[in-house]
Amino acid sequence: MTSFTESIDIRVYYEDTDHGGVVYYANYLKFMERARSEFLRSAGLELDSIEADFGVMFAVTEARVLYHSPALFNELLSVESSLTTMRGARITFNQKIYRKSDRTLLTSGDIHLACITREGKAARIPAPVAQPLRNHLNPKEIS
Amino acid sequence: MTSFTESIDIRVYYEDTDHGGVVYYANYLKFMERARSEFLRSAGLELDSIEADFGVMFAVTEARVLYHSPALFNELLSVESSLTTMRGARITFNQKIYRKSDRTLLTSGDIHLACITREGKAARIPAPVAQPLRNHLNPKEIS
Amino acid sequence: MTSFTESIDIRVYYEDTDHGGVVYYANYLKFMERARSEFLRSAGLELDSIEADFGVMFAVTEARVLYHSPALFNELLSVESSLTTMRGARITFNQKIYRKSDRTLLTSGDIHLACITREGKAARIPAPVAQPLRNHLNPKEIS
Amino acid sequence: MTSFTESIDIRVYYEDTDHGGVVYYANYLKFMERARSEFLRSAGLELDSIEADFGVMFAVTEARVLYHSPALFNELLSVESSLTTMRGARITFNQKIYRKSDRTLLTSGDIHLACITREGKAARIPAPVAQPLRNHLNPKEIS
Repeated sequence: MTSFTESIDIRVYYEDTDHGGVVYYANYLKFMERARSEFLRSAGLELDSIEADFGVMFAVTEARVLYHSPALFNELLSVESSLTTMRGARITFNQKIYRKSDRTLLTSGDIHLACITREGKAARIPAPVAQPLRNHLNPKEIS
Repeated sequence: MTSFTESIDIRVYYEDTDHGGVVYYANYLKFMERARSEFLRSAGLELDSIEADFGVMFAVTEARVLYHSPALFNELLSVESSLTTMRGARITFNQKIYRKSDRTLLTSGDIHLACITREGKAARIPAPVAQPLRNHLNPKEIS
Repeated sequence: MTSFTESIDIRVYYEDTDHGGVVYYANYLKFMERARSEFLRSAGLELDSIEADFGVMFAVTEARVLYHSPALFNELLSVESSLTTMRGARITFNQKIYRKSDRTLLTSGDIHLACITREGKAARIPAPVAQPLRNHLNPKEIS
Repeated sequence: MTSFTESIDIRVYYEDTDHGGVVYYANYLKFMERARSEFLRSAGLELDSIEADFGVMFAVTEARVLYHSPALFNELLSVESSLTTMRGARITFNQKIYRKSDRTLLTSGDIHLACITREGKAARIPAPVAQPLRNHLNPKEIS
């Protein structure tokens, strides 16, 4: 049985940290967005092509993030993404950020997105986008 | 009756936007953090002094953010903060971001923080910090 | 004699600092860009209107920044901007960032910009934009 | 003859772009800093270890950046770094950012850094750090 979780490595650079010595809380959302972009790429979907071909993009409608333990400067992180729901215009990712060296869970979250037109209206996900996404839905998460 | 909601104005600059033409989703969390800092300042608390005097800082443990409508380049926003709970080491802020011109609610969220030592251990909020915070707890929110 | 230097105050928040305990070097360029936006606003120019009305924007072509002394968390900064040259499609700002409390010069730089179309081609600055800019050219800098 | 230029790939994500549709001008400095960190790692130097072992870090003293052509959303970039000078406490990197697909030069710059103590005083680069750096000085640049 294939795993439908995609993982990318992210190095913590100076830009990501704050004077508390750890990654700034908003920057984990950047890491999660990079990981979602790579999830889509691994499903054969390029965000710039989706925009050019179908005139739609994905906008975050809700983010719920839990901060378990901080990521430190120069650490290597592993960011995992699962697509957990897809309905009409809406998709949800569950994302987990681990310290790669010891698999400590640092941050986790559910990010809800809506497919929208350039004018910001919700739009059904175009079929050529929905099909590969459906193939990457995490089966554990289907109720 | 005093209002315990503090508000600051934030202008949307180039740095805040992304190529979708709106404020990038992680950057609203920066706006909220600026507003929390000013909330504390208005309560007579300076974050650098708290750190120097008591060896503690506030770390975000959970962020739940709802994105209702996007903020656009060059818009003036109003970011409102209420302190809604305080218990031991933990406080919670409810924050709302409005477009200032027409009071459209753009983003709202609950941000949970914990008082921690420099080593990252949870620590009871020092009394000289807790007292002014208690005075700024939003009475509507006390159960 | 009018001064043609515009100044804005900027507070250093967590988001601006890095784990070295000071403002991250790229973030001073954000401060400078905020200050240039406010310089233009004080000259009666709104960047979103310039874009909507004339189909042009200003793109940075060269940045030369000197880092004299670091800005620290929670400090209040004063960012000064002078328009020092304007020729055809090109303008240059000289910008200085001071710690407000003691006027220590922290960062200074010359930022060169070109007026470009949406397709990225250099374009003469539209007359209704050039005129107020000309009125705000720093006379000390005219050779 | 060994090449002493190190190169890393960087993908342009939403976080990097602005509403002009291209990478925000300050963010190229983030890309350059990531590339310098990887240059040092490839020379066997880890920034967190340098800090822990010798109590020093590298602070940018001057950045001169030329913006030739913009990087677009979702593009893959190649960021090249050469160490061009090393004297006492000071080092200089020459850095170039290319669009990877067609090797168009997008941004180039010289970034000057000083080795400083935690108190911000300039300090001679510790010998165990200076030696691997010397081995990676770009010979074309030695006069």
